[in-house]
Amino acid sequence: MNKTAKTVNTLTATTEVPIRFNEVDSLKVVWHGHYYQYFEDAREAFGKQFGIDYLTVFEKGAVIPIIESSCKHKRPLKYGDSAKIEITYHDHPAAKIHFTYKVYRKSDGKLSATGSTTQVFLNLDGELLLNNPPFVDAWREKWNLI
Amino acid sequence: MNKTAKTVNTLTATTEVPIRFNEVDSLKVVWHGHYYQYFEDAREAFGKQFGIDYLTVFEKGAVIPIIESSCKHKRPLKYGDSAKIEITYHDHPAAKIHFTYKVYRKSDGKLSATGSTTQVFLNLDGELLLNNPPFVDAWREKWNLI
Amino acid sequence: MNKTAKTVNTLTATTEVPIRFNEVDSLKVVWHGHYYQYFEDAREAFGKQFGIDYLTVFEKGAVIPIIESSCKHKRPLKYGDSAKIEITYHDHPAAKIHFTYKVYRKSDGKLSATGSTTQVFLNLDGELLLNNPPFVDAWREKWNLI
Amino acid sequence: MNKTAKTVNTLTATTEVPIRFNEVDSLKVVWHGHYYQYFEDAREAFGKQFGIDYLTVFEKGAVIPIIESSCKHKRPLKYGDSAKIEITYHDHPAAKIHFTYKVYRKSDGKLSATGSTTQVFLNLDGELLLNNPPFVDAWREKWNLI
Repeated sequence: MNKTAKTVNTLTATTEVPIRFNEVDSLKVVWHGHYYQYFEDAREAFGKQFGIDYLTVFEKGAVIPIIESSCKHKRPLKYGDSAKIEITYHDHPAAKIHFTYKVYRKSDGKLSATGSTTQVFLNLDGELLLNNPPFVDAWREKWNLI
Repeated sequence: MNKTAKTVNTLTATTEVPIRFNEVDSLKVVWHGHYYQYFEDAREAFGKQFGIDYLTVFEKGAVIPIIESSCKHKRPLKYGDSAKIEITYHDHPAAKIHFTYKVYRKSDGKLSATGSTTQVFLNLDGELLLNNPPFVDAWREKWNLI
Repeated sequence: MNKTAKTVNTLTATTEVPIRFNEVDSLKVVWHGHYYQYFEDAREAFGKQFGIDYLTVFEKGAVIPIIESSCKHKRPLKYGDSAKIEITYHDHPAAKIHFTYKVYRKSDGKLSATGSTTQVFLNLDGELLLNNPPFVDAWREKWNLI
Repeated sequence: MNKTAKTVNTLTATTEVPIRFNEVDSLKVVWHGHYYQYFEDAREAFGKQFGIDYLTVFEKGAVIPIIESSCKHKRPLKYGDSAKIEITYHDHPAAKIHFTYKVYRKSDGKLSATGSTTQVFLNLDGELLLNNPPFVDAWREKWNLI
């Protein structure tokens, strides 16, 4: 790989989730807690697109629990609409996975919420990995992140 | 145990679950799917009261997945109220666990729903057990069910 | 419409739902209660395909709560797989909506579960409608059900 | 009220939530998204204890949607355990409600997670209230917060 050509240190995917009837509360808007589900749906889509989904990670001997999450709400989502979620991976050397999220309303394209999550690596005995597992560095190199 | 005195072949427990804000849909009533959660809450309460909860069953080398469930709705449950769930174990010789449920509204004591579930026994390799595991027959005897 | 040509009294749609990570329990299979969500996803897909979704019904002045639901489980669904749900509307003259469901595992095409739901019509004041609302009979005629 | 005596500007409540079987994922720990449900359970408990629950707020003509939430995870919660949640209201003059949370494992008393939420006031037409509604200032005075 031509390192000098490297300019990318983020990767982005998008996915779309129709609002489910029972995700909407008595105020007729999506309950705030469900946005964390949408973030997870976006991580799934990202993982499939870039070859680093949970099952692949697990086969490599690691799990990646969330240690931090946050969400800021701008505009409500309603039943009948869909959430369009943009997920961005931000590369950095520490043994962590950092994503940010933008959730748009499909109906009018307006921003509904932003958010972030941080994940760490544990081995299958539940011990924290202080350095990136080799498969992660290989993955980062493959996608021209390092 | 004096078998001639046996008249019991059911066991009943009750539990109470406050309605959560996000269990109520845009029609301001509990979404029907959540009643299956209330049934599970009742199984938990039953298991703790009668010493046959999931963790105990697991330690004995079995899991008890649901193979059938059903629910009939009579009156809605609303936010601010609580579900009062009566769960009844119906003993029978087959290697199955059969429960029925009555869900009452705490506010007025009226019946909100009835339901039933059937569970089977699998060993930890996921194989169906055609006969009750010994710990289950011991449990049935302890509670004077057989 | 040529009544003599009528042979259809059911309508069928299919939809596909990827298994979410958090729908799988500690036994690594989809928790039984989530199948009722899959049934709802199938009703949504059916409603969109045949023009009788919740929002359309609501605009016509009716809501259609579930009064009965049931599910029988054959084979587990696992994370990484998708549920392929076949939903069938069974027409009949009473003011009720009756659906049956078949849930298949996308991975091997095998049947995971079957189920059924029954819905009634309420007006927006919550009163039970004893006869089909006119828009429903028009809908049944449109799809050659009556 | 004797302002010079005022020392309180926070209020704290605690509640306890048993871990539900289906809140635990295939890694046998509570899925991170469920902590936002525990936070809501704590807000409910707080609201009931201090007379400012959702229904009371609604009767006063306001709703209080979440505009920000966050959670940091320290130690996992497992099935069989309970979450003990400490919720603290932090008073301030802006028309916002700010809570922080500490989630403890009942089994060993250790900290599982910390978090925060911010809510704003909308009137029943969905318009943002720039100043605290009068009932909120009355409530703050009652509890010696101002």
